[in-house]
Amino acid sequence: MSDGRQQETREGEPPPHFDAAFRARFEDLLRWRRDVRRFRPELVAQDTLDHFLALANLAPSVGLSQPWRFVWVDDPARRGAVRANFAACNAKALESFDGERAQTYARLKLAGLDEAPHHLALFAVGAPSQGHGLGRATMPETVPYSAAMAAHTLWLAARGHGVGVGWVSILDPDALTQCLDVPTDWLFIGYFCIGYPSADHDRPELERHGWERRRVDAAAALRR
Amino acid sequence: MSDGRQQETREGEPPPHFDAAFRARFEDLLRWRRDVRRFRPELVAQDTLDHFLALANLAPSVGLSQPWRFVWVDDPARRGAVRANFAACNAKALESFDGERAQTYARLKLAGLDEAPHHLALFAVGAPSQGHGLGRATMPETVPYSAAMAAHTLWLAARGHGVGVGWVSILDPDALTQCLDVPTDWLFIGYFCIGYPSADHDRPELERHGWERRRVDAAAALRR
Repeated sequence: MSDGRQQETREGEPPPHFDAAFRARFEDLLRWRRDVRRFRPELVAQDTLDHFLALANLAPSVGLSQPWRFVWVDDPARRGAVRANFAACNAKALESFDGERAQTYARLKLAGLDEAPHHLALFAVGAPSQGHGLGRATMPETVPYSAAMAAHTLWLAARGHGVGVGWVSILDPDALTQCLDVPTDWLFIGYFCIGYPSADHDRPELERHGWERRRVDAAAALRR
Repeated sequence: MSDGRQQETREGEPPPHFDAAFRARFEDLLRWRRDVRRFRPELVAQDTLDHFLALANLAPSVGLSQPWRFVWVDDPARRGAVRANFAACNAKALESFDGERAQTYARLKLAGLDEAPHHLALFAVGAPSQGHGLGRATMPETVPYSAAMAAHTLWLAARGHGVGVGWVSILDPDALTQCLDVPTDWLFIGYFCIGYPSADHDRPELERHGWERRRVDAAAALRR
């Protein structure tokens, strides 16, 4: 990454004021972002996908290290290996549940790996030279946290374009990493199914299908 | 968290369409979000702060586990302990650099702990019962990743209200956790300084002060 040129900035421009109308719309974006597992087959334009990554690249990162690394997975054999990886891990997860909960689990659709036209893997460089280590000496986990925030940025940007993203974590990360033949110092963060969703919802699929409910009191704070 | 009631939803409402004007404004939000270390003293209204947490609570979470836990830190003695924690870790970090880079490091302002009117600590429940373990069997790190995405949501929401957020990670997490007297199964994620910024910028402070440059090519993707 040593050839990187400085990102275009617009210093000198007055800072934007975000008004109530924008904020309400932004809150709609947060409310209607979903973990999407049901996709239509149409491709998303490559320019649009590239734009999502450019926006993800504006995410916060520890020490300005920009440690996220993106991999588009196109090869049918590799996609097949990812599907098999998911199927094995998901079968094992099912075994960990009993009775009614196992039945509910078995009915859930937990990934759109078969339908999603685009597959994106996200990694983080374990110990990025960029940033010179600033901010992560006592908390090296801030490096993968930075990559998770890049994923979230991409997720919101995609939803703004009507594009759905589903994060697949029911995977063996070592097998996944090996299958994608990436540098050995990359840490697997997540695998993303991307495409136009077959439907839009403001309630999570896991809630609509009876697995779990959202709690408003998870926003409650202690005081110390 | 067992008393949580279902979050208000608006199922049945048509999904929003996000137009080009909104998307451009959202991109401004991403470009002008900053890690803020220089704050004005005015308080942010408690309602507004609560609203930020409510929006953070809409972040993606593995298995719908909502594992984030928020702690407002008000007590002067505790704030003093956090400042001392930061000072010790920052002095140690300085020792790890030599020559010109050490001089640059010493000149950087890396936290707004003295000025920021609001201090927020973020934790994640290590093994949340909510979500019934779904999605995290092979990747338990998706729990802290969920909390990091909640932090990012709060960050963007705050910026939309003209409020700045600075993530402090130059801390000993064990000492921090002990000082805040939280449940022992909580994992420290980050400490946030919150308040109105003394200035707005579209370039990161670490770039403006010569520590590191942003790279556009961090958005480049491999193909596999």
